[in-house]
Formats: sequence, structure tokens, C-alpha cells
Amino acid sequence: MSSPAELMSKLRPEASREPESGIISIFNYGRDREGIIPLWVGQGDTPTPRFIYESAVRSMEAGETFYTYQRGIPELRLALADYHARLYARSFDPENFFVTGSGMQAMQTVIQAVAGKGDEVVLASPAWTNYPAPLRLAGVQPREVPLSFANGRWNMDLDRMFDAVNARTRAMVMNTPSNPLGINMSADDILAVRDFCRKRGLWLIADEVYARFNFGVGNGPGNLPPSFLDICDEEEQFLMVNTFSKNWAMTGWRIGWAIAPKAIGQTLENIIQYNTSGVAQFMQRASVTALEEGEEFLTAQVEQARAGRDIVCNALRQVPGVQFQEPEGAFYLFFSVEGCTDAVELSRRMIDEIAVGVAPGPAFGPGGDGFMRLCFARSADSLEEAMNRLVPWLSKR
Amino acid sequence: MSSPAELMSKLRPEASREPESGIISIFNYGRDREGIIPLWVGQGDTPTPRFIYESAVRSMEAGETFYTYQRGIPELRLALADYHARLYARSFDPENFFVTGSGMQAMQTVIQAVAGKGDEVVLASPAWTNYPAPLRLAGVQPREVPLSFANGRWNMDLDRMFDAVNARTRAMVMNTPSNPLGINMSADDILAVRDFCRKRGLWLIADEVYARFNFGVGNGPGNLPPSFLDICDEEEQFLMVNTFSKNWAMTGWRIGWAIAPKAIGQTLENIIQYNTSGVAQFMQRASVTALEEGEEFLTAQVEQARAGRDIVCNALRQVPGVQFQEPEGAFYLFFSVEGCTDAVELSRRMIDEIAVGVAPGPAFGPGGDGFMRLCFARSADSLEEAMNRLVPWLSKR
Repeated sequence: MSSPAELMSKLRPEASREPESGIISIFNYGRDREGIIPLWVGQGDTPTPRFIYESAVRSMEAGETFYTYQRGIPELRLALADYHARLYARSFDPENFFVTGSGMQAMQTVIQAVAGKGDEVVLASPAWTNYPAPLRLAGVQPREVPLSFANGRWNMDLDRMFDAVNARTRAMVMNTPSNPLGINMSADDILAVRDFCRKRGLWLIADEVYARFNFGVGNGPGNLPPSFLDICDEEEQFLMVNTFSKNWAMTGWRIGWAIAPKAIGQTLENIIQYNTSGVAQFMQRASVTALEEGEEFLTAQVEQARAGRDIVCNALRQVPGVQFQEPEGAFYLFFSVEGCTDAVELSRRMIDEIAVGVAPGPAFGPGGDGFMRLCFARSADSLEEAMNRLVPWLSKR
Repeated sequence: MSSPAELMSKLRPEASREPESGIISIFNYGRDREGIIPLWVGQGDTPTPRFIYESAVRSMEAGETFYTYQRGIPELRLALADYHARLYARSFDPENFFVTGSGMQAMQTVIQAVAGKGDEVVLASPAWTNYPAPLRLAGVQPREVPLSFANGRWNMDLDRMFDAVNARTRAMVMNTPSNPLGINMSADDILAVRDFCRKRGLWLIADEVYARFNFGVGNGPGNLPPSFLDICDEEEQFLMVNTFSKNWAMTGWRIGWAIAPKAIGQTLENIIQYNTSGVAQFMQRASVTALEEGEEFLTAQVEQARAGRDIVCNALRQVPGVQFQEPEGAFYLFFSVEGCTDAVELSRRMIDEIAVGVAPGPAFGPGGDGFMRLCFARSADSLEEAMNRLVPWLSKR
């Protein structure tokens, strides 16, 4: 038997020094509180609809419980190509799609493909914790470039991001609509990033997981905000990660996909093989159903999120000292609380005193101090109750 | 648009130079052949039984489709502790169990915890491809120490393995019963490895995935061969990886577990978070059922494998120039073919000419040249048909 300290000292330093995710930390803190309204993680209160999970059940009953294609079953890769073709009004090749065990696993897979110890990756901050953390775990230095928040608006200063690129930089990670900020990149900014990455020979890793949750007037049948898919070529240094989690209420399933050049397909297949060896076939069948029959459900989810956004924005606008940019997309409100010097402590008090769970801003990296993130992808009743608790509490805080 | 060569040149070298798995390669080569008898991968022909997958269905119907515990749901960790307590006749603490998205993912997780670029890990060879490959992907140098095969027996020369340890070595990976060899480590060898790792401050990573498939007289209610769990302490530099795949015909599910010190629990939770963010709750419910109600099914699977072993051993013993050690455990026969200089070509010809799929020995590393691995965890009918094709073909080859 060894002491805990001794055992920790025997781990890889990159692994042992990585702190707990600030989102998971608050989730674990409040998970079992009575009457908690959980707005901390990125999921709604709707379970996966029956028409989706029934496809998984039929697949299990048909005995589809054996090993399968590492890149995903052909039917799902085809359904992904068709889904993208419908939304982006151009053709996609199934061979550019790689099924992964979650959007997170897609991110992990593309990191393993392009960057390792001693390399650097540039990203904006605040950002989802789960970009910089797996980079650090892989020995990669994330260069987090803080956005500025002034006059109630976030400004993405691309020049500062480009300046953070050096000879060790292998990739830029771009997220639009942004988690946690809810802002969409403009078509001009997307073009500038693509051109910069092309010029410098960098991988451009795009996360547009929340693209369908767009509250403005967007493009095409999916009402999409400007996308890297509008202007990037599948056979360039372009990688996209995505998930079934958010659109189709499948957060717990752990299934996602990557879009990547066919030219690196064998390498991605190998990485999938040595990470998870693929995704359950019955999950993939349910995912085909989500893509092919899930538009009506998704539309309702987006409308619920839009209504949720209005509820939380209207409520929190009344609170002196609370500031935010009204989200254009995704389903988070990232709001600052004047005078808050310890957002973790504040989020714990919020759980203890009014049973409302939000994620503290510092979990999202530099630039998140004094902010809180709440998820509004929930029923109006639940959000109204949360605001009834939160508004007076924040006002008299 | 960039050229394929240009894109490959932009990948991490450790990723781009890793070849395709030799097992997957042959699987992909022959997957769709008419009448193929697939003995190439490690799975039987029995789909997951209804009593197991019905627990997943009930869980989906109950709406358990949200994010859950990164380390696994408490019920599954408890069921794992109870299962081990029954088999090993001692107590286990649920806090030492970590649910992962497959045994492969358990391996990936423990590698990420203990070894990175510039480190080395020692293992025996031939071994499952999926130890050295993820090590190489992580920038770790696997030191594969070839076992010797003489007079129809494999000899594990531990001194050679110990000699392969140097100042950069972080861990030894031990697999008993061995895939692909089917041999069990002796209690003396297990003790020697534990003592050596203790003395040198190395992590001991044990894979006993096939422990229940033991054809000799073993210990306790599980008829187990000697195990590292008999003599290792959960709170030392000891890590074990395991899977639901083999015992309960759940290969396609992708769910497994690790046993690790509680002291490093937070680090493992973080790694799980940044790899896959956990495993679907409905899969975990099915796994609880497998552990609690799966003994009868498992016993039948082991008996089928024992009968399968006898069928393939009796058949191949007749073939001049074929040599093997009769498997004591697991469900593979690893046999040499006299004069075979290209096992990959031979395995492809076997698919093309007689529609029998086996994995070529070189897929299992140094020491595998001239060998083939076949999986005998199948119905007697299917194995007899395979032998009816294989014996004459190999005899006149």
C-alpha cells in the first residue's frame, strides 16, 4: 500500500496537475440537492424521444450487438452526408464523416491527430473547458486569448488571436455559436480565420455543435449562422467536431462525429480503434433516425430555447449590476455579477440558499472571472421558477 | 484543397506513421465475403442476450438519457465491487472501480494517466495489438519482449522482460490469460512481476479480460486462474483493465472498467471527462444486470469455448507443419504454419479460397511471424465447418 501522495507523484505530470472541470465540480457539489433547478450543464430537461430510442431497441432485438465499423456504419455516414447536404445546400461525401463516441471524443480524436507534447493550439476564451483541458492532458499548450467584454458586448479581436500563433502552433479552435457566450462569428471573421490558417499551414478545428440553435435570421432550411462549412473544403486542413447530444436530446448517449479530409481517414480510424474501438451499432441506428426524422423535434427544441432565452434575459435585465450580451445562438446565458470576486463560491451559495445550479465563469478560462453561465434549454415553467428564486437573491446579494 | 500527402505531412508524426491494425485490416478485407466464417476478431456468434439488453431498454423508457457520473453510476460501481468480492472471496471498495467506454478505453485512460512522450512501457509479445499501438500514438515507446516458442510451448522469460526496464520505463503491461496465446501466468510469475514492479516503482497494468474463460481447474466460484488481484493492493501502483465484451457477449456495446487506486480517482475522472465524458446510463444498467444475473449465460459461453477449443485443437493437430500450445484460457488458438513467410498473404488467401477468416500473427507484434490466430468462441457447427475447410487446405498448401 502506497500513500496517496506517493501514488499521485507517479502519474504523468500533465495528468496529475489537471484540475477538476469547474462545470463537473459544481454539478457534483449540487447534484443531489432537494429541489435543485440544474442549469449548470449543457442539456435540457427533455429525455431522448421515443421515436429515436426505439431504433436502438429494434437494433438490439435484431442482434446488432457485435463489433462494427471503426469509422461508423455506412448508413450513418450516408445519413450524415445527406443531413449536411440538406442544411448547407451542397453535396457532402460520406467518406468525410467519422462517427465518434461523443463530440468530446471527436475533439480528443482530432487533437490526437494533429497536436502533441510541445505543440501549441490557439483558442478564444471564455470557451468550453473541454478544449484546453484535453490539450493540456496531451502535453499541448493551449493559448487562450481572452475576448473583451465592453458595453454589454463581447468582441472577438481576431488580430490578438493571430498574434498568439507562433512556430509551435498547430491549430486554431473556433466555436460558433459560442459556448458559453452565445455569440455567432460573422461571415467576415470566419473567412479571415480560414485565410489565416491557410496562409500559415494551420489546422482549423471548428465546433459548430450549436449551429441549429440560432435565434436570428440564418441561412437555408436549417436557419444556420455563418459556418466554416460555407467556405472550407473537406480536403484541406479543416476539421469539424459535432454531436447528437444537443439537437436531439441525446446528451447521455455519447455519440458524435467529425468531418475530416478523406486523406487522413486511415489515421483517424486508427485513433478511433485505439481510443474506443467504435460506437455501438444500436446507438448509430438511433442516430440515423434522429437525422432523418428529427427535424420536427429539433424545431420544437429550438423554439423552447428561444423562449427560454427571453425568460432569462428579461428577468436578469432587471437586476442591478448584472450584465450580459443577449445570446444570438446556443442555449447559454453568460452574465457578469458586479463585485463578484469568487464565482465558484457564489455558485455554491446559489445552490445552498436557493437551489439554483449554474456554472461559475472561471471554469471557462481567462476572461470568465465574475461571470456565471446558465443553460436555458428548459421548459418555461422551470426557468420561470429559477428566475423567481434568482432575481431577488442576486438583487439583495 | 490540399494534396493527400500534404495533409498527411501536417499530422502528428506519431499518429500518421501508425499502421492500420492487422486485425482490423483483415476484418475489413473479408467482412463482406459470402459464406465467410469470421474467426478473426475476439467475439463469438451469440448476440447479447435479451435479459441484459432489456435493462437498457427499461432505462431508456425511464428517460435515463442525460449526462451522468463520469466514474460510472454508483449502482454499477457497487455491482462491480460485489462481483469481484464473490469471485475473489475478499472485499472490494466501489470507489476503486471506474466505468469506461470499453476495455480499450480503460487501457487508453490508464496510459494517459501514467505514460507520455519519451516514456517506455514493457510488455510481452505476441500480444494484443491494442497495447503497443495506443502507446506509440501517445509517444510512448513500447518495449515488446518476444516470448520463445519451443517444443510446442510458449515460455515467458520474465528475466528478459525485467532486463528491458530502464530509467524511462513507467509501467509493465501483463495479460493473463493471454490474447493471442491462451496461456495463463503461474502464481509464481505473477508474484515475481508484482515484486519487481514494487521494487522499481513501476505501474503494473494487468489485463485479465479472459479470466473467466479458464479451461483448467481454477480458484473459487469463478474457476479463476492465478490473478494479480490475489496479491495486489488496490492502493498501490496497480491498474487493471476489463470489459463486459467477452463474458456477456457485449463486444459491440463498448463498455468496460478499470480498477485503480482511490488516490488517483480525480485524475482518472478528469481523463474520462476529456475523452468521452462518461458512458450511457442505459448501457450501465444493462451491465449491472450482466454482473448480477449473467452467471448462467457466462457458464454456457465458457463451456461452448471449451468445446470449441477441443474442436479446433483436434482438427489442427492432424495437419503436418502446424504447431501450437493447447490454450489453457481465453478463446484463441495461436498456431504456426511451417514455411509461412507471409502470414498476411496467407490469411487473405484463406479468405479468398475457403472463406475462413483468421488474424495474421504479425498483427500481434514481434514473435508472431508465421503464426495465425483464430477465435474459437463459436458454435460447434460453425467451427466444424471451418475446420472442414481449413484442414485440407492447410494440408495441401
